[in-house]
Amino acid sequence: MVLERAHFAVLPGAGDRFEAALGEARSVIAASPGFVSLELHRGVESPEHYLLLVEWETLADHVVGFRESDAFARWRALIGPFFAAPPDVEHFEPVAGLG
Amino acid sequence: MVLERAHFAVLPGAGDRFEAALGEARSVIAASPGFVSLELHRGVESPEHYLLLVEWETLADHVVGFRESDAFARWRALIGPFFAAPPDVEHFEPVAGLG
Repeated sequence: MVLERAHFAVLPGAGDRFEAALGEARSVIAASPGFVSLELHRGVESPEHYLLLVEWETLADHVVGFRESDAFARWRALIGPFFAAPPDVEHFEPVAGLG
Repeated sequence: MVLERAHFAVLPGAGDRFEAALGEARSVIAASPGFVSLELHRGVESPEHYLLLVEWETLADHVVGFRESDAFARWRALIGPFFAAPPDVEHFEPVAGLG
């Protein structure tokens, strides 16, 4: 299992529209092979910050299977217009006994 | 529910000792009122990066109840020696329907 951790900074005042767009985009990413789960969280200190956590079966399911698919273009077309900066994405693996 | 998201960068080669220290420190933070759950994940692109996710019942349970307690000093004494930089900590709330 691999956890994709993405930070999104959205344009001022765009939070509600970004959340609605991500609700729509969820079905796009969820249909991708190897997708396991998705969570979206909104910043407390900085409400224009969002934390996206997506579990994938393997790293390749995300960086090859999803990112190189037509579905990725649809995903980004839905949520990209609200970005104030390029997303910051990193992958993680659970630490045994603590993951 | 509030999610604490912490990024830790550890000293080169210190990953295994950091993980062992966090395994010990887990019991310290888990005893703090309002603690719900803890997960530790290790970076795929950068193995010296760790992602800590801690769920708290409220923000105050973390930033007041835990951070101002003696338990926090014990927590930091256990894991702090392995930090290569100050931790980057931010709090998030689940987005309805996506959290």
